[in-house]
Amino acid sequence: MVKNDTSVSLREKLLHLIDTRTKPPGSLGMLEDIALQVGLIQQSAHPAIVDPHIVVFAGDHGIAATGLVNPYPQEVTAQMVLNFLSGGAAINVFCRQHSIGLKVVDAGINFEWNNTLTNEHFIHARMGPGTANYLDGPAMQPGIAERAIDEGKKIVDKIADSGCNCIGFGEMGIGNSSSAALLMASITGIPIEECVGRGTGVNNDQLQTKIRTLRKVYDLRQLDSVNEKPLELLKQVGGFEIAMMTGAYLQVAARRMVIVVDGFIASAALLVAQSIEPSIPDNCIFAHTSGEQGHEKMLRHLKARPLLNLGMRLGEGTGAALAIPLVRSAVNFLREMASFDSAGVSDKDQQ
Amino acid sequence: MVKNDTSVSLREKLLHLIDTRTKPPGSLGMLEDIALQVGLIQQSAHPAIVDPHIVVFAGDHGIAATGLVNPYPQEVTAQMVLNFLSGGAAINVFCRQHSIGLKVVDAGINFEWNNTLTNEHFIHARMGPGTANYLDGPAMQPGIAERAIDEGKKIVDKIADSGCNCIGFGEMGIGNSSSAALLMASITGIPIEECVGRGTGVNNDQLQTKIRTLRKVYDLRQLDSVNEKPLELLKQVGGFEIAMMTGAYLQVAARRMVIVVDGFIASAALLVAQSIEPSIPDNCIFAHTSGEQGHEKMLRHLKARPLLNLGMRLGEGTGAALAIPLVRSAVNFLREMASFDSAGVSDKDQQ
Repeated sequence: MVKNDTSVSLREKLLHLIDTRTKPPGSLGMLEDIALQVGLIQQSAHPAIVDPHIVVFAGDHGIAATGLVNPYPQEVTAQMVLNFLSGGAAINVFCRQHSIGLKVVDAGINFEWNNTLTNEHFIHARMGPGTANYLDGPAMQPGIAERAIDEGKKIVDKIADSGCNCIGFGEMGIGNSSSAALLMASITGIPIEECVGRGTGVNNDQLQTKIRTLRKVYDLRQLDSVNEKPLELLKQVGGFEIAMMTGAYLQVAARRMVIVVDGFIASAALLVAQSIEPSIPDNCIFAHTSGEQGHEKMLRHLKARPLLNLGMRLGEGTGAALAIPLVRSAVNFLREMASFDSAGVSDKDQQ
Repeated sequence: MVKNDTSVSLREKLLHLIDTRTKPPGSLGMLEDIALQVGLIQQSAHPAIVDPHIVVFAGDHGIAATGLVNPYPQEVTAQMVLNFLSGGAAINVFCRQHSIGLKVVDAGINFEWNNTLTNEHFIHARMGPGTANYLDGPAMQPGIAERAIDEGKKIVDKIADSGCNCIGFGEMGIGNSSSAALLMASITGIPIEECVGRGTGVNNDQLQTKIRTLRKVYDLRQLDSVNEKPLELLKQVGGFEIAMMTGAYLQVAARRMVIVVDGFIASAALLVAQSIEPSIPDNCIFAHTSGEQGHEKMLRHLKARPLLNLGMRLGEGTGAALAIPLVRSAVNFLREMASFDSAGVSDKDQQ
């Protein structure tokens, strides 16, 4: 995406601008890499982050009703969505702090709102009352993964059309760390046992049950045979929110917007999107290394260098929300700092 | 400082509040630790970060005129101070982005402003035209380190009296990574060769010269014999800005304010302050691991867990400025998030 002649000269221009700001070369570390990357994504020597958003995709998972993989009851998905809409969740706090727009998408929650839920932050895009339990059959009916991807693209289009050029995706869905672990195992080839983690916080016994259950699902759904068929993979063990996020990634990249990648589940959706469009990571800035144990391996697979490592494992897009200010700092230093010339500051080795 | 009965029950109260916010316990990682720490510093279950400031102490170093330790000419200290005051440096960009107050202190720059420099952000507290070259004798005249510490305390008092309760210290001073390395070697007992780094960016040959020069200074100034005499140590090899920052640390802690510790030089000043008042680190939040090679060892010595690791090595307080929003996020989640009860969200294992 950045290999044509124009881009090579843009890269040189950006590197020159970065090096002539009033600081020793390289002294802003990863912020300098981010400034270059955002410049290349936006094809501009004066990149800017405009009206950044977090979009939280929420969906339920059939497996959650069994209690085999999750310590919280399935109802929590809908309860937390209401919490997002009334402003009481962590993602609300961080979005308020940094003036980040927030949208919450019902991608398929197992709760009937009866059309009573209207809220400027809420987007109805429900694929069904949660996925089916993938112990019994595929998680989704035929064609649903494709529809979810299309919905994800439309949601991005609407937000982008309003002027936003930087999005981070979050998720809410009791049971979705299981779906993410299954997707990861299939795509990366890492054994499922190494992909499974504690999610929202299973204890040791529950973790063993979770691992046993997901090994069984991996074999039952024949995930080794669909590792290069992302849509079939989503159908077998995906979540509605993960499928929709996959579509959203594709569209954000197609529109040359900056993607800020959150934690374990958001990165699993990115793996699926990358199977569809391999150049997607060029547009991605990785927010953080999650405390969920499989995330570090997933990031290694993606050759990612995340900005933060705070041991967070909450989801909701909270890691992305905390990283967006750092992305802003990167473009801000490039846009706002004086150069050695303009500030009359002597450069290196001039003594 | 946090060991009396009141504090023990405050600790329990804070931990309960942290755990009952609508998130799995522990899922906000280090932000939860910071929320607890700030609550204990402020002795409040509703901690808040109010009007945070960065104070940049600037001073010159006699050694810099020799060119043995620094690739930039000494004039850059004054030039960069003017850059701070006209808003063109990295620290200005980050402070503007996060509404952080900025003060710039002339602690002893080798430049005569002729009283022409008046600026609401500028504080005159000049100890002299830079320190003396410690290759030839002590860096400071008798009594100056003490005066600098007093000045640092007064500066903090003035800022604190205006309502601020959280400060990060930055520095500017060509040659000051050498002073910091010498202080570090003396206090920690780590060989000077392992404390010296590239500073603003010496090349390989320059680094060897810097190491040889500082080994010579270490022996000449008999730094092994003053490792427990912080004022004598400052006199021998300190910088005016480092001495003033030492006093500032002492006063911030005395006033139970939150200290956000920047990189290599700011941490060296903290080592000196800790030799004077061992409980100081209780009040400190460590912003980042600097790219300056000795900083990681210094942080280990301080048993610090920094928030960021972005390979930055600019100084000016830039690491602290980028970390202050994370400290704010920590107190904000505690203050603003709903509880499981108030949001009607089911807690763990209720299915």
